[in-house]
This record gives sequence, C-alpha cells and structure tokens, in this order.
Amino acid sequence: MNTFGTLFRLTSWGESHGPAVGGVIDGCPAGLLLDEAAIAAQLARRRTAQSLLTSSRRESDAVRILSGLYEGRTTGTPIAFEVANEDAKSEHYAAIAGLYRPSHADFTYEAKFGHRDPRGGGRASARETVARVVAGTIAEQLLREQFGVEVVAWVSSVAKIGSSVDADSVTRAEVDRSAVRCPDTTAAAAMEAEILAARSEGDTVGGTITCVARGLPAGWGEPVFGKLEAELARAMLSLPACKGFESGSGFDGARMRGSTHNDDFVRDGERITTATNRSGGIQGGISNGAPVLFRAAFKPVATHFQPQQTVTRDGEPTTFTASGRHDPCVVPRAVPMVEAMAALTLLDAALLHRARSGR
Amino acid sequence: MNTFGTLFRLTSWGESHGPAVGGVIDGCPAGLLLDEAAIAAQLARRRTAQSLLTSSRRESDAVRILSGLYEGRTTGTPIAFEVANEDAKSEHYAAIAGLYRPSHADFTYEAKFGHRDPRGGGRASARETVARVVAGTIAEQLLREQFGVEVVAWVSSVAKIGSSVDADSVTRAEVDRSAVRCPDTTAAAAMEAEILAARSEGDTVGGTITCVARGLPAGWGEPVFGKLEAELARAMLSLPACKGFESGSGFDGARMRGSTHNDDFVRDGERITTATNRSGGIQGGISNGAPVLFRAAFKPVATHFQPQQTVTRDGEPTTFTASGRHDPCVVPRAVPMVEAMAALTLLDAALLHRARSGR
Amino acid sequence: MNTFGTLFRLTSWGESHGPAVGGVIDGCPAGLLLDEAAIAAQLARRRTAQSLLTSSRRESDAVRILSGLYEGRTTGTPIAFEVANEDAKSEHYAAIAGLYRPSHADFTYEAKFGHRDPRGGGRASARETVARVVAGTIAEQLLREQFGVEVVAWVSSVAKIGSSVDADSVTRAEVDRSAVRCPDTTAAAAMEAEILAARSEGDTVGGTITCVARGLPAGWGEPVFGKLEAELARAMLSLPACKGFESGSGFDGARMRGSTHNDDFVRDGERITTATNRSGGIQGGISNGAPVLFRAAFKPVATHFQPQQTVTRDGEPTTFTASGRHDPCVVPRAVPMVEAMAALTLLDAALLHRARSGR
Amino acid sequence: MNTFGTLFRLTSWGESHGPAVGGVIDGCPAGLLLDEAAIAAQLARRRTAQSLLTSSRRESDAVRILSGLYEGRTTGTPIAFEVANEDAKSEHYAAIAGLYRPSHADFTYEAKFGHRDPRGGGRASARETVARVVAGTIAEQLLREQFGVEVVAWVSSVAKIGSSVDADSVTRAEVDRSAVRCPDTTAAAAMEAEILAARSEGDTVGGTITCVARGLPAGWGEPVFGKLEAELARAMLSLPACKGFESGSGFDGARMRGSTHNDDFVRDGERITTATNRSGGIQGGISNGAPVLFRAAFKPVATHFQPQQTVTRDGEPTTFTASGRHDPCVVPRAVPMVEAMAALTLLDAALLHRARSGR
Repeated sequence: MNTFGTLFRLTSWGESHGPAVGGVIDGCPAGLLLDEAAIAAQLARRRTAQSLLTSSRRESDAVRILSGLYEGRTTGTPIAFEVANEDAKSEHYAAIAGLYRPSHADFTYEAKFGHRDPRGGGRASARETVARVVAGTIAEQLLREQFGVEVVAWVSSVAKIGSSVDADSVTRAEVDRSAVRCPDTTAAAAMEAEILAARSEGDTVGGTITCVARGLPAGWGEPVFGKLEAELARAMLSLPACKGFESGSGFDGARMRGSTHNDDFVRDGERITTATNRSGGIQGGISNGAPVLFRAAFKPVATHFQPQQTVTRDGEPTTFTASGRHDPCVVPRAVPMVEAMAALTLLDAALLHRARSGR
Repeated sequence: MNTFGTLFRLTSWGESHGPAVGGVIDGCPAGLLLDEAAIAAQLARRRTAQSLLTSSRRESDAVRILSGLYEGRTTGTPIAFEVANEDAKSEHYAAIAGLYRPSHADFTYEAKFGHRDPRGGGRASARETVARVVAGTIAEQLLREQFGVEVVAWVSSVAKIGSSVDADSVTRAEVDRSAVRCPDTTAAAAMEAEILAARSEGDTVGGTITCVARGLPAGWGEPVFGKLEAELARAMLSLPACKGFESGSGFDGARMRGSTHNDDFVRDGERITTATNRSGGIQGGISNGAPVLFRAAFKPVATHFQPQQTVTRDGEPTTFTASGRHDPCVVPRAVPMVEAMAALTLLDAALLHRARSGR
Repeated sequence: MNTFGTLFRLTSWGESHGPAVGGVIDGCPAGLLLDEAAIAAQLARRRTAQSLLTSSRRESDAVRILSGLYEGRTTGTPIAFEVANEDAKSEHYAAIAGLYRPSHADFTYEAKFGHRDPRGGGRASARETVARVVAGTIAEQLLREQFGVEVVAWVSSVAKIGSSVDADSVTRAEVDRSAVRCPDTTAAAAMEAEILAARSEGDTVGGTITCVARGLPAGWGEPVFGKLEAELARAMLSLPACKGFESGSGFDGARMRGSTHNDDFVRDGERITTATNRSGGIQGGISNGAPVLFRAAFKPVATHFQPQQTVTRDGEPTTFTASGRHDPCVVPRAVPMVEAMAALTLLDAALLHRARSGR
Repeated sequence: MNTFGTLFRLTSWGESHGPAVGGVIDGCPAGLLLDEAAIAAQLARRRTAQSLLTSSRRESDAVRILSGLYEGRTTGTPIAFEVANEDAKSEHYAAIAGLYRPSHADFTYEAKFGHRDPRGGGRASARETVARVVAGTIAEQLLREQFGVEVVAWVSSVAKIGSSVDADSVTRAEVDRSAVRCPDTTAAAAMEAEILAARSEGDTVGGTITCVARGLPAGWGEPVFGKLEAELARAMLSLPACKGFESGSGFDGARMRGSTHNDDFVRDGERITTATNRSGGIQGGISNGAPVLFRAAFKPVATHFQPQQTVTRDGEPTTFTASGRHDPCVVPRAVPMVEAMAALTLLDAALLHRARSGR
C-alpha cells in the first residue's frame, strides 16, 4: 500500500539502490504556483551529510517534475516527480546479503515477498521518504496559502535528554539554529554531545519529534474512524523507525485526573478557545481551533557498528558487524519527514471537510 | 468516515440517545459458523454497570442480526446488526444543551456540522463502540479459526500505577479475574483503590491498555503507508479518549541506544525468531512472527463531578457541574474495544496478504 | 463490495427473504431537512403490485430511519435505515433449492461463496435496490437544493418498441402518466400491450431506460479513471438485469463519421454550450454544461413460466418451471432505480469537484 | 482520479506534450519474471504510424522501469515506469490555443481546472493509455500464469460494417492478420476501405471492439456494487472516445423475450456450464465459468479535417480547421487498450476473490 490520502493522494515508489525514487501526486488543486525552492529546502533538511550528526552518504536530491505543471502552475492533473539515487555503494551490501540484520526489515520483507533484494534496505530504507517530503511540501504550500495553516516540527528529545519549547511560537528558523534541530539551545547542545558520544562508540540513539500545526479552523477531522488523531497517528507510524505517537497530553495524560486534565473553554475576543491545550487541538477527533500538537517516538537507528548476534538465511548463528555510512541518530533528519506527513494528513482533512461543508 | 477496513469492512452507525446503534460488516468470508456467544461475552465486558468501577447506566445489548446469515453461517453477503439503546435519560442532558462541556466533543461537532444534537454525546459517545466490539469479535473468530491468531488486552496502568504482566502467556481469563481487568493482582488492587478514590472525590482517572496478538506468521502488513503499526495506531486512536499509541519499546525505546535496543535473530527449532521483542513483533511495518505487542493511552474521563469553567454557546462564561451516571475510569471497559480494533486491523492485513500471496 | 461512492457513500445490506433490507449513508452533509415524502414516493414507484405490468407481490416499504437525523435534519453522522420485508412466501422457493435457475445468480453465488441461501434470490434479488432508492432520493434532494440539478428517467424501449421523448423538457409527471413509464403516449400503449402479451404467454421482455440530468455546471467528473461516463456506467451495470450502457450517441455514434457527429460549440447568452448533444453532456469525462444523457439496457426477466432445461446441484439434467409472482418486465419499476444510481453518482462527482475547487 | 483498481492498482500520469507518460503499479505479486517483450508487443499494437489507418505521428515507446524489479522479477514493491514522449510538434497546437475544438476536452478541462494547457490534448489525449497498456500487459501475464485466463479483443465493427467472429476460439494472431484488427477477413477488407474513404475525405469514423476473456473460474466479481460487468463497464468507459458498453447480449438482449434469452445450464463432463452465452459469462455480477464477453463503442475521432463551427475562449464564433497528424479511426489502436483495461479489471477481481476465499 504505497498510496497515502483520500483526496490529495501521494503514490510513492523506489528503492534505495535503484536508479531513482519518486512519486505521483493525484488530486492537487489546479492553479498553484509551485514553490520549488520550498521543496528543495525541505529536501536539504532531510538529506544526509548535513553535519557530523548524520550519515556522510551524499545525495543531491534534484527533483525532476514530469507532469502536472504548465508554466510553473499545477494543472490539476497528476504531478509525477523523481529524484535520482546517487552514490550508492552496493559493494557494502554484499556482506549482508546472506544474513538478517537485527531490527531491520530484511527478514520480514523476505517472509512477505518470498525473495530478497539484497542491495541496501530497498523499499524499507528511509530513502523512500524523499517522495513524502516532496509531496508534503506541496501540501504545506496549499495549507498555508488556502487555509492559513503552518506546520513546524522539532527534535524534542534525544536519548534521555528532553527540552522545553513554546509550541505556540516556535519557528522553523529557530529549529534550524542547531544541527540537531532542537530550538531549546541548552538541550540542543546536550543532544549533540549525546549523539556524538554514541557515534564515537559505534552506537546509535533514539529520540522524539514534536510537531505543531497552527491556524486550523475548528471542524477538521472525520469521526469516527477518520479522527484527526487517528490519521496523524497512522501517518507518523508509517515513517521508518517510528514506534510511538501521542496527541496533546498523550501518555502523560493517562496518569492524570480529569479535574486537572480537562481544557476549560474560554472566550478570546470573538472566538471560543481553550485555556489549556491538553487536548492537543483535537476533541472527539475534530480540530477545535487550538494548535494541533503531537509527538512521535523514533527508535535508535538499527545499524550500529558493534558486533551483533544474528542468523544467516539458513538459520545458522553468525555475527554481524555493520560497515558503511549510517546516521547515529535519525531524528534531526526526520523533522521534515514529520512535517511532510502532518501536512499531507491535514490537507486531506481540509479537502474532505470542504467537500461536504462547502467551506 | 464511518467505515473501517479495506477487505473486511465495518460501517458503523448510531447515536447514544437514538433508538439503536449498529453496523454493517462487508467482506466477511462465507461459511463461518458464527459464535454469537462470543459476541455476547465481549459486549458484556464492554457494558456499563459491571462493578463500582463503571457507570451504573444499564445496557442489555442484545444483538439483532438482520442479514448475511443462513442457518447460523455467514453467507458472504453483508452482515447487518443492531443493538437497541435503553435507559437513556435525556432529561439529564437538558442542562448541557446550552454550553460546551470541557474536553468533550460538543464544541467541535457543532463547529464541524453547524448544529448540535444535545442528547448526550450523540455520535461522539463511547456507545458507538458497541458496533466495533460486535464486528471485532467476528474478526477474532476468523483470526483464530483460519489463521491461528489470538488477541488479549489488559489494563496495564491506571493513573500512576503500573503493572507487570507476561505478554507471552497472559489469558483473557486472567485478565478478567479483577474488575479493573489487570492480571497483575497486586497492581489490580491498587488500581481499583485509585479509581474508587477518584470516584469518591467526584473525579476521574486515565490509564493505559496493553494488547498482544500471538500466532501471526511473518509477513502481514503492507509497506510503506499500510505498515502494521500504522494501521494499529490509527485503529487505537480512533477509539474515544485514546490519545497515544506505542508499539514494542515505543517511547521508552526512543531513550535507548541501538546496541541495547536491537532484537537479535535466533533459531528456534525450524523457525527463525528474535531473542527479545522490543520491535513488538513488527519490523519494517511487517509482522516478524513474534507476538505483536502495543499499548494505548486513554485520557481521564472528561465528565467528572467537580465544578468546571466553560462558556455557553454564545460565549458567555459559565460554570458547569456534571450530573448523571458516568465511568470514573474508561480503561476496564475499553479492553474489549482495544481487542476488537486490533482484530479488525489484523484480519484485514491477513486478507490483504492472502490476496497477493495466495497464502 | 456493498458500498457505493467516495464521499457520499451508501452501504447496502439485506436479502429478499430475510427480515429487512437497508443501508447506511455516510458523508451526507449536515443540515438537510430530509424530504421523507420524496423517499416514499420513489419507493412507491419502485414497488411491485403497481399494475398488471408488475409482480403482485405486495410490499409496503415503510422506511425506518435509525440514526443521523435530529428534528428532521441530517446531523452529518451516518444515516441508517431499514425497510422490513413482508409477504415473503418461502414455500415457493423450496422447489428451486435443488437446481440452478437459468440466467439467475443461483449458480454463481454458490460458486463464489461455497453455499446457497435457497430462499429466493437472496442478495441477488432486486429487493436490494430498495436501499439504493432511499439513498438516491436523498442524493437527488441535495443535487436539487445545493446544485440545481434534476434527474429524470423513463422507459425508452420495451422489446422492439422504441419511443420519442424530448430529453430537454420531459418531467417525472409526464413519465408517470403511463403505467409503463414512457412519456411517449403512443409508444407507451404499444409497450403495455407487448408486456401483457408476453405475460399472457408466461413470458417476459426486456427494455431500455433513458436518463437525463439537467442543470449540471461544466466541470464535474474526475479524469482519467473517474470519468463521469465511467462512473455512470458502473452505477448502471451494478443494477440487477442491466447489461448495457451508452452515453450520448453511444453505439449509434460508433456508426457515424466525425464530421456529422461532433457537437459544435455555440454561444448562448453569457454561456458557451453545444449546438447538438451527441456527447451526452460529457467531453473528456467531464460535464460540459449540457444535459447529461445516457441509456441503460435491461435483459428480459429471467423468471418466466415456460419450462426450461437446467441441471440440479449434482449436475443432473432436469426441467424447471417457475411459479410464484414475478414481473413480466423490469423496466417500469427500474426507472427510480436508474434515477437513484444517477443521483448517487452525480452527487459524488459534485462533492469531489467541490473538495478541490472550493466551488 | 488517476488510480485504477483496489488490490492491483495502476496510478497513471503524464500529458501528451510533456517529457513522458508513465505509471506506478502497486500491489503486483512478487516473484513474477516480467515479460518485457509482451509489454513491447502490446505497445507496438497501440502505437501510431502502424499503417495508413493510423496517425503518422511516430512513437518509439521504450519503457523504462525504475523500481520494483530485481534480476527481472517483481519484488512486491511498486513498479514505476515511464515512456518518453517524442516527435511532439507543439507548433501545430498554437492554432488551437485560443478556441475550443468541437467534441474535444478543451472546454471541459478549462471549466474544471480554471486554466488550459494548450499543448495538444494534454491529459485528455489518448497518449495516456500507454500507461494502461504497460500495466494491463503485466496483469495479463499474471492472469495467464496464475489463473489460466487469456484475453483477446478485436474490432467488431467500423462505421456500419459489422463482422462475424467466433469468440470461443479467436486468437490474437488472427486479430493481427489485418491492419484494422478484425479477424473476419471479408469484413476487415470492407472496414479498411471505409476508413481510407473517410480519410480521403478528411473525415473520421467510429467503431466497436469486442473482447473475450476465456478460462475464468466461476466466482469472480463482487456483488452488489462491484459486479464484474459494472467494473468492466467503468474500465471501458474510462478509455478516451468510448461511449458505450454492453455485456453478453447487451442492447440486443433488451429486445428479446426471456424464453429465448435465458442460458440453459448443461453438464459438460465434470463441470456445469451454459448451452448458450447471452449472459456474457456473468450472472448476478459473478463469473459463471463461460467466456466473459463484452463490447465497447467508440465514437468517431473528434479531429477531422473539414471546417467546423466553434467559439473562441471569449465566446466569439469562429471556424476551426484541424491540421497535424491524427487517426482517421481509433479502434484498431484501441484493441490493446481494451485488452489492458479488461486484464486490470479481471486480475483485481481475482485477487479480491482470493483474499476472502483463499482460492
């Protein structure tokens, strides 16, 4: 299932070691003057080799758009795009063709499809998220221009290091002040040290990303199975290495009492809003006009450089020690992926709501 | 969006204070000798008035099946069912028609649909989960009989009280030994005390539910957007009051290093499995044959009995104090809901996999 | 697959000899003051026992709406409805349980589902179209009130008897002047004579229905796979006994030359329209603002009263002679079914267009 | 809506005058040794410049596959492919940018999307069917290898010239004996003369294509809205210039009586079949094991070379005389398109059936 969305739909394709990755966007409204610089900027944030915190594998990620544009504007027909793969050193992968790397998808893809493409992670590689970022950035542009919504994500924790960030005001520029993409500068320094420490030990770390969407009207989201949180959860858990999602107070909220958890309604000028936002901007699965706020958990990168026990394809015990270039921590690069998936989800909700309400 | 699933599909309908709630199951394989007792048993677990831990509102929840059965077996055509609503005291609801209850869906439904059905929570009430439990129990039966899969969920925390349970062996009978549905008896006693304490203060508490599905083969789940975790996350977050989901190590995993997080592959007789299960039985979005393991967070019930600040429909500040019969904690009753949504999700994954692989 | 539509969705259920048939409408915009009299009127046109032209089986077809309405208005939540089955004489059906009636669905349902519900046609009976007519009439109301579109269908041929009708002006009242539902009164008399002649011989006849939708703006329809004609064709061919569809000039057009077939564009006041309408109001799969015009072919009713050769379920040759009450010709009763499916299709196209265009 | 299918899904993209057209196939079972020669062969049959009967515009149509293959076998991941556009003489199109060509999609695309890509037919051009043929040929291979089904289509009429062909035995080689792709050689000669006559007068003609699928088991098709005929009708009417569909006896059947129309069941060795096939292999929307047989009507090509009345984009009357290279008749080239859409539809039905039945 390589299509995401109901009305604004991305179909994604491509393996990490094939000639290219790409996608087709179906249902993009016509007449949008496509902001290709914004796409390039988000791809640059997703790219490897940005700093010592990320893999040194180099990708130039130039997007080639093959359809759906005329004189720079969307025509309403499918937007096909592709990004060439470069610098794929398949020789690194010969060593892994005969075994199952722990906590990778080697074993499960082989079990599912009855075969194995041994060149890198294939479709399970985070390389496929290039297509998400391209489509998500177009969705962001539509959200901004047609609905006044903006999306900002940041690294909120690395390993055990948390942070404190004002979700109501944080900007993408503030996020990008640190290589780790945490706008809390004290925390950012500690996070970077933690990642470099893990790296120096041939190890990897996990982390979390928090995302806010500001400017939504009340009314987006489709109960009962298309609740906004349900769609956001699915979007996040579809990202490589993502193992958790929480909306508003999330798991912390499950430890609270109702009397301290509820968000009182208050009047703010002409509009009704809430005094607090433990609901994360969503009540009954529908946006309430407060910022939509959620957090996604990413496990530590599975490829570290310490020896690991595993089995060969024949089930014989063996030891595996990874080589090649890999990220010690995925979350700095995952920030634009989270933004992209959030934008795709929210735009789809906006279009679904407009279809029935006319607004 | 009131339909869940791609091949085994539930369409759900009904409000808490209308004549009935119900659903239509489309895509149920033909020839299943329907276990109506199992449906009744799961509905009984979902029901109110089971103990002091739940609302005293009484529901008999007799299921009437209107189509899709012949001589007790499914025919392959849609299975329509309905469950009458009883004991609805609409007079309790007159008091709330003019204001927005904090952290309820009153405000957002009105914003979305431009109107308000003031009789109780309407479609946002947990009453709609009756349809999920009916359909989910049929899905469970198919999973068990055709695929050898069983699903067990339990309350793993209430407020700040955690528990320790062996996911590889826990049974539904063990779960039901305590009214709170936690198989760790020490923890269960503390949880029950906590709920009763909150209740005595007119307050409510949140909690978490852990769910395991045992017996899956390796190979279920549809990368990249239909990853098994993504579909499970969506299923859980679609439940009323659910605000978080984590798979395997989840948010805890995000605090770990790769060298301690990875699940080594080992041989177990003829099959390959993992020495640990931090992946929660899913790698690259596809089941790996280990138990599928996840956890869902539920916020404290929004209706407590202490005075709350809110606004009227005209935006005037007012105080709201709830009356009526409400659960002090939703998680004991949510256990069969979680099982139902898990079963619907897993069966759909099984059928999708069988469509393409023939297995 | 018992769900029709993308945004305005009908899920249909029920067998001819079960307790009821019904459906769930998901995605109906909120705030519609439901015209229940219109639903009753269309069901009355669909009903048996209207005249000698139709079966004497009696149905009262009272619709019970179970959800999605408050004070007569739609709430935006699913509208569940059911219609009880009456007057089902299952004893008539014992005779057919052991054989396959020619050109019925007995054989194929058994092949597909591995079993047989011998009570009447089960799900293959035209009884299921009750749900289509209920939902289609609601769709018609939305088309009329929100988009200014009206749908009118009529019997355009019976056996070899054709007719001449002005599609630009014909009204439903004119259609209903004759029991056969052909507004060409001369043709109608001949058609009725033909049907009664067939009936007196224990035989049945086929026919065609033409349908027009007037008032569409230019722009509805989703190329390339969701062309308006493609969706209408699917809708029509999903009706029992329908074996053909043509749009505009259809099969006749395939015998013409381009120079005489093309529709010249002309100016009509402020708008651009076509001088002729061989395109049937659709070009490139998108409405052009001219009346949408199509025709559906219905085979003769499979149940006639002459002896037929067939085989038993064991493959032994046998003779079958039908008994019971059956229509000698389906087209008079199929007129509201065609209108219903057209309305469901067009409303879905309207909502899809509005989602992306905001209009 | 540029995606076709539920389980085997084609997403198509590209305009006639952009750099390429292409598609993404999602859901292709893994392990298929892709028959690229078969794809090339079907594309060659679709191509222009095959004979005097078709446009002289040259296309080489080399398919570039970008993902989803490893060592020639499908991997189960999306198969992305593209075919470069060549020989696009955009200068021919400057003349048409300011007006609406009669019976083309210029006007409706502009109405729908609020803009106009004046370079040729854009997305409405039959050029987009390249993607259908590529995907359909892969579907054909799966149908043949996994299900024993073969699909053959041929030109059954051109203008008023019909033909007589044995659907039970006709082969693709017989079809290709004539440039017009009619296996009835007498008819073929008359058809070719008719097309050349029209061409010499600067005119175009319409025609019909008949298609048979042999080898289906009984049981494919999803009642009630996914009837096999409904899905085939939708597939055919989604083709450019297609304006009609009929299954089995179709429109002729609507002129018959039940006593002569019904297909008696007979025993044929171990299996049950029908003595005649007026049902077109489908009863109650489900295949009955007899050959699936249907016919599609194509209007005359809209671009002829005689002067036509139309209006400019400002609504001013003008005369349009086409130039450039265009087919005088579309049906010879539409034969592989019909086969492709039939194969996509049937394979999807096969997979849906297998999902639920395990067969």
